[in-house]
Amino acid sequence: MNDKLKNHFETQTRRVDKALDRLIPPLSQRPFDIHKAMRYSVFAGGKRLRPVLVIAGAEVCGGSWKKVLPTACALELIHTYSLIHDDLPAMDNDDLRRGRPTSHKVFGEDMAILAGDALLTHAFFLVAENSKIPGVKSDSILRVISLLSQLAGTAGMIGGQVADVKSGAGRWKKYWKTQYGSKKQLLKFIHHNKTAALIQGSLLAGAILCQASEKQLKALNEFGKNLGLAFQVADDVLDRVGDKKKLGKNGSDVANQKLTYPLLFGLEQSRKMAGILVRRAHRALSPFGERAAILHLLADFVASRDH
Amino acid sequence: MNDKLKNHFETQTRRVDKALDRLIPPLSQRPFDIHKAMRYSVFAGGKRLRPVLVIAGAEVCGGSWKKVLPTACALELIHTYSLIHDDLPAMDNDDLRRGRPTSHKVFGEDMAILAGDALLTHAFFLVAENSKIPGVKSDSILRVISLLSQLAGTAGMIGGQVADVKSGAGRWKKYWKTQYGSKKQLLKFIHHNKTAALIQGSLLAGAILCQASEKQLKALNEFGKNLGLAFQVADDVLDRVGDKKKLGKNGSDVANQKLTYPLLFGLEQSRKMAGILVRRAHRALSPFGERAAILHLLADFVASRDH
Repeated sequence: MNDKLKNHFETQTRRVDKALDRLIPPLSQRPFDIHKAMRYSVFAGGKRLRPVLVIAGAEVCGGSWKKVLPTACALELIHTYSLIHDDLPAMDNDDLRRGRPTSHKVFGEDMAILAGDALLTHAFFLVAENSKIPGVKSDSILRVISLLSQLAGTAGMIGGQVADVKSGAGRWKKYWKTQYGSKKQLLKFIHHNKTAALIQGSLLAGAILCQASEKQLKALNEFGKNLGLAFQVADDVLDRVGDKKKLGKNGSDVANQKLTYPLLFGLEQSRKMAGILVRRAHRALSPFGERAAILHLLADFVASRDH
Repeated sequence: MNDKLKNHFETQTRRVDKALDRLIPPLSQRPFDIHKAMRYSVFAGGKRLRPVLVIAGAEVCGGSWKKVLPTACALELIHTYSLIHDDLPAMDNDDLRRGRPTSHKVFGEDMAILAGDALLTHAFFLVAENSKIPGVKSDSILRVISLLSQLAGTAGMIGGQVADVKSGAGRWKKYWKTQYGSKKQLLKFIHHNKTAALIQGSLLAGAILCQASEKQLKALNEFGKNLGLAFQVADDVLDRVGDKKKLGKNGSDVANQKLTYPLLFGLEQSRKMAGILVRRAHRALSPFGERAAILHLLADFVASRDH
């Protein structure tokens, strides 16, 4: 990671982590058990990419991180809940995440399900909390809630996850025929919704809270779509070629017979496609000029993830 | 059920069912699979108690059902998601709900988890949709989102469910010592949070959207607390004495060694306590005078549930 971006991440992560610690119920609040499980997964060494994107979306439109901090935290909670539920035995059945035992391994399946539910519920509480920050309009917050509930729901992240689950264990060979037109379309549907949707949502949420123009939102939407897809393609490649230490878990796509870019197009072609998507992301930023420096660095970072 | 209340339920249920059908994504939207699972559980013969309470909360404060319909639907989605996740093998492991196979029995555990997640996410979308109804203030909607995310979260429904899960299989004999002071306190914590919280939330949500005064909100809060507790005590009694046909499922509390009112106080004492709670609920309605007719009938209905 580029030094300037690394510094940026360190600064923002410090702010976000401090806010998360303040905004998630303390261990001393009953029932202790659930807050322990929530905090275990939230403070598990995540990169805070989505909060950083919320703040970047605000800043590129002339806003400040101070205006969007609760919503930045909300995006991390939505991301964390999705990981906890994805890891469950009934889903991907992963024992390790970021090198640590997954939630259901530590707290049991019942508590992992409830911790995920609680994080999702609390995320909407935090977005609503953004109304306490002076200068943020109630109408903007409602627009963010509407947008995020769609992009985290069946028209976004959950939709992608459903298609991913239904395609697992080699079932994609038949499942694409039920509603997707082609295997490639199914793969695009999964990746666009499972990952890109929430990345777009993060950027747009920050921008909306800071009164971005429709033109700015359109540009960020295009940037987010391409960045998110590139991110997921790189993730597929990483799962195939990365070592366990770097990944913090075993590469499980091949074992689970998942439909991935490397499987459908091969490794080389997948890397090329990620490159094309990253270039498109860069181009989408042109309306912002020099203000978009951090977003350009982010796009470069994503492009280099599989090395 | 009293005839007047029966008619009221029929009228409101028709409105709510029609709105739910319009407000939940159609089966033709991809991925088909998840919308099928969502609709299976939402249209499974639920009584729509929570939507009826949202509307009653609005009407007793001088508002109209038209102003609160999307939020009334949202409460039904939150309730339905909680049932789907409660029934999972890792939780209560129930095969039947309202006389039909539970979600995970029909769609698999993975889809049942995701259908619950999707309903919870969509609930917040629907509350935000309430802003499209003329005359409803954005600030009121944000207040409802903040309230519901607390009462459906670890400070409410999920908190109660966590304590319930941790107390299952006879573990309440030790679990109460970790943080609740006494077995009775643990039982009260479970019931107040698991059931009463969302019943309170329903009444308050409808009232807030219709500009209720703080005095009115306080009265509804008191009414909802007692109604909700009475409801859960009656539910415990029903689980013990009700037949399978009436219940739509096997009584599972004894088999699961759950901490319930009949277990701690015996059947007779539990019935008496439910009666006291219902009387308190009636008393709380005094500020509303004759406007509260439906809420009085609702309280009587809850009191008679175990017969």
